[in-house]
Amino acid sequence: MFGLMQEWPLTVDRILTHAKTWHGGREIVTRSVEGPIVRTTYAGLHERAFRLSNALVALGIEPGDRVATLAWNTARHMEAWYAIMGMGAVCHTLNPRLFIDQLRYIINHAQDRIIFTDLSFLPTLMKLRAEMPSVEHVVVMTDHVHMAEVDFAGALCFEDLIEQHAADARWGGFDENTAAGLCYTSGTTGAPKGVLYSHRSNVLHTLVTLQSDVMGLSAQDVVMPIVPMFHANAWGLALSAPAVGAKLVMPGAKMDGASIHELIETEGVTFAAAVPTVWEMLLDHLRATGARLTKLKRVLIGGAAAPEAVVRAFQDEYGVAVSHAWGMTETSPLGTLGAPTPELDVLPADARLRELLKQGRVPFGVELKLVDDAGTSLPHDGRAFGRLKVRGPYVARGYFKGEGGDILDAEGFLDTGDVATIDPLGFMQITDRAKDLIKSGGEWISSIEIESLVRGHPKVALAAVIGVPDPKWEERPLLIVKLRPGERATRDEILGFLEGKIARWWMPDEVLFVDEIPLGATGKIDKKRLRELYDSSALGAPQHARP
Amino acid sequence: MFGLMQEWPLTVDRILTHAKTWHGGREIVTRSVEGPIVRTTYAGLHERAFRLSNALVALGIEPGDRVATLAWNTARHMEAWYAIMGMGAVCHTLNPRLFIDQLRYIINHAQDRIIFTDLSFLPTLMKLRAEMPSVEHVVVMTDHVHMAEVDFAGALCFEDLIEQHAADARWGGFDENTAAGLCYTSGTTGAPKGVLYSHRSNVLHTLVTLQSDVMGLSAQDVVMPIVPMFHANAWGLALSAPAVGAKLVMPGAKMDGASIHELIETEGVTFAAAVPTVWEMLLDHLRATGARLTKLKRVLIGGAAAPEAVVRAFQDEYGVAVSHAWGMTETSPLGTLGAPTPELDVLPADARLRELLKQGRVPFGVELKLVDDAGTSLPHDGRAFGRLKVRGPYVARGYFKGEGGDILDAEGFLDTGDVATIDPLGFMQITDRAKDLIKSGGEWISSIEIESLVRGHPKVALAAVIGVPDPKWEERPLLIVKLRPGERATRDEILGFLEGKIARWWMPDEVLFVDEIPLGATGKIDKKRLRELYDSSALGAPQHARP
Repeated sequence: MFGLMQEWPLTVDRILTHAKTWHGGREIVTRSVEGPIVRTTYAGLHERAFRLSNALVALGIEPGDRVATLAWNTARHMEAWYAIMGMGAVCHTLNPRLFIDQLRYIINHAQDRIIFTDLSFLPTLMKLRAEMPSVEHVVVMTDHVHMAEVDFAGALCFEDLIEQHAADARWGGFDENTAAGLCYTSGTTGAPKGVLYSHRSNVLHTLVTLQSDVMGLSAQDVVMPIVPMFHANAWGLALSAPAVGAKLVMPGAKMDGASIHELIETEGVTFAAAVPTVWEMLLDHLRATGARLTKLKRVLIGGAAAPEAVVRAFQDEYGVAVSHAWGMTETSPLGTLGAPTPELDVLPADARLRELLKQGRVPFGVELKLVDDAGTSLPHDGRAFGRLKVRGPYVARGYFKGEGGDILDAEGFLDTGDVATIDPLGFMQITDRAKDLIKSGGEWISSIEIESLVRGHPKVALAAVIGVPDPKWEERPLLIVKLRPGERATRDEILGFLEGKIARWWMPDEVLFVDEIPLGATGKIDKKRLRELYDSSALGAPQHARP
Repeated sequence: MFGLMQEWPLTVDRILTHAKTWHGGREIVTRSVEGPIVRTTYAGLHERAFRLSNALVALGIEPGDRVATLAWNTARHMEAWYAIMGMGAVCHTLNPRLFIDQLRYIINHAQDRIIFTDLSFLPTLMKLRAEMPSVEHVVVMTDHVHMAEVDFAGALCFEDLIEQHAADARWGGFDENTAAGLCYTSGTTGAPKGVLYSHRSNVLHTLVTLQSDVMGLSAQDVVMPIVPMFHANAWGLALSAPAVGAKLVMPGAKMDGASIHELIETEGVTFAAAVPTVWEMLLDHLRATGARLTKLKRVLIGGAAAPEAVVRAFQDEYGVAVSHAWGMTETSPLGTLGAPTPELDVLPADARLRELLKQGRVPFGVELKLVDDAGTSLPHDGRAFGRLKVRGPYVARGYFKGEGGDILDAEGFLDTGDVATIDPLGFMQITDRAKDLIKSGGEWISSIEIESLVRGHPKVALAAVIGVPDPKWEERPLLIVKLRPGERATRDEILGFLEGKIARWWMPDEVLFVDEIPLGATGKIDKKRLRELYDSSALGAPQHARP
């Protein structure tokens, strides 16, 4: 027997319609790519997105077609999102930090028909001019005055399109499982693979993350998504902020400490989300200038493990609460978030902080499973570490065009590729990427744990640990360190810092001081490249080291 | 093109499984019907609900069958809910405050096969012994020691059932649109009609209400649903509290001020939900004893308009925030809630309070429409009043067995039967039930607005306004007043209190002082009965009045 409740498909266009109707005057403030701070409202954004949808229809876009964006976080980028998804096309976010070969591959694999691009990325895109046969139009996200000369037959100006089309589009009205977004992830092996979000998964992700113990946004918040919309959907903020009618502040292309701080103060930002490096830049700026954070209440840290020093600085020096979160492109992305529980609140301050430095606990809507190599479930004792698997209504069940084949286990869980522990309080901690674990003497060593400790050393800018072959132990950890500008340090100084903090047999045998540690397109350390650069021979190659 | 996200049907069993897995040790504390305070945990509740599901299967219950409960808010009642819904049967909450004729009608209309009942309601139920042919078993929700002699062939003891069955039931695995719950509403006309909730609507209601700007529960909350589970599903708290892992405190049969206050203080309740009369009893108790509220942070008031005096007392005297909500059985029930917005926060205190005394604003997931009799949309100007209509994924599209026919308009909206205004800040105010509006000289008079003003008079316990036929004006308002015990008042004293607060032509011509104002089964004033009692002739029937 079925219930007798209304059919109301969970489609993302309803989010912006809600914002327009009930919070129509709330602002979206953008540091524009052209320079000035510009303002619109949810009512304005809705009207312009409607016009843009009509432009897409006029350009021949059909439901299901892929329309890409290569853009910073701006109101225009949101207009493009809602215009594309509202009419039933698929919004494909391109990551401008990808190598050009990857961009070429992804555009062609997705068969994008239109690409919306910021002026800043136009030169990169034009290098691919002749190698993206599916692309009929490049829409430059600017106005007539700033419009560049574009050597591409189908080039169009964003503001011209909006001006030329009517403000009465038709949105939604399709199955909630209709594809809404596409985002490629480099994954562990092989070519990038596309995660194809549905309207339903986007709306459910929005609702799950709006819980108080997750992102908990309110109409009284002023929200700044610094994490890019091309990086795992800005963690859903371009959907969840309008869903509650929160004011949005979009940082555009400028993510340096001074620019971020200026926007936080002048616009009264209460909630901001970014990867650790952005927060480190902000903290550096605050210290250098003596500036304060007078409005900010909470920061969300994700994308990589939050360094303890950053969390302590926000909490103790600036009175800003930190939420540490974990997720991946395949999980829309929110998997876990470190919201306090009554059990945490009775712990001593240091023990409480140790819990909050973990990757967090799952909200209703995400299921986690921890298994050994044989697939047997491991206890939630905080010690047993195993493969982390995830299941839920906004978790991928496969990749676009079937790449990678069947990726779920018999119970429908996705293997995250991470190795983790879960403690009795329910807090999950990523121990390592499965492929980055170091096997030494038959036991596992976590590269991430050593790295995060070393990053707490005041002279260290960046640290990486990789396994190098060892005739006796199979692998041994090699610590690679990039010092802060102007700093000098010795091997013993760095290793001494680890003394007593890790098991003796985890202690790296050698420290390699380097000028640069290679990063991937999402800002994470590129361990594959590190392993190529610093294999066992590097241990005997002192030209890489500096005293 | 469809997205490639996991299939994860939104079924309510997942909520308790989440609570068991991630908050297994969190307590559910109950003032038991037998007397003592008893405790269990989400892990314990889950195991017992599993056993009970197996008991239902052993008793021959099939998916889709209706299994009723006639019970107070207790952990056992929750166990019954999850046991019934988890296996795919339909949990039918019976309201013990209904007249016995209505109970008989509803049990037979629903064709309940089993009724779970508290000891307190057994005598009532046994009066219907011979008149409920579909009922095979009556399960008395108590243990062996307290089990009553029941003169019913299929009588069973709750704890015996749990003891006798294994703890490994199979839950979920069916379509998310499967019926989960059934609740009858007396509605405006005719026989009671059943709202048939689905698993999907229950889960979506849970997620929508968990937003910060709605109920916003956290694992750190201690939640007391005083509003009964048979009254619009305790506003969803038996689902939303486990979804976030909040401790639950269930008041059982005792809702007097002293009992409620004791539980709030001893169990550390931070969030409680009830109708205005319960809060009035609590405030009376606090004033009489000088007791304080040391833990309570927020109360939710719904079911009837929150009197200004109650809101002011909580906020100003006890430092407890008040959330005023509106909903109905047909809306699962949360329709609106008065969460502050930035626009409210800049208003003077009194103007801000006036907004918060309205019925509130909609969360994402609820759509409102205000229309005149011709179906034309009315402006959100706070003045135009019209029919309030509602649409959303947890709003009814029809009644059980098709009673009442097609109830949605062409756009899929349900007519709430309420007349309301919506102001420019998005706050909705119920002006009246459409059938209770008084038409005088071609204009509408709101009975509710006059009533809530009169209830602010210190001598008044209860007030009702009904329209009585008038040869010149068509209808005129009649004010019916029940004074507080021991109080005396005159017509002029009461009407003088209204002077300047309402339009002159809204002023009731007469005041009728009565000993009792009839209430319906949900505690609301029974205006139908009032109109029968006090028609125009009553104006000339001073035997009802006292000086």
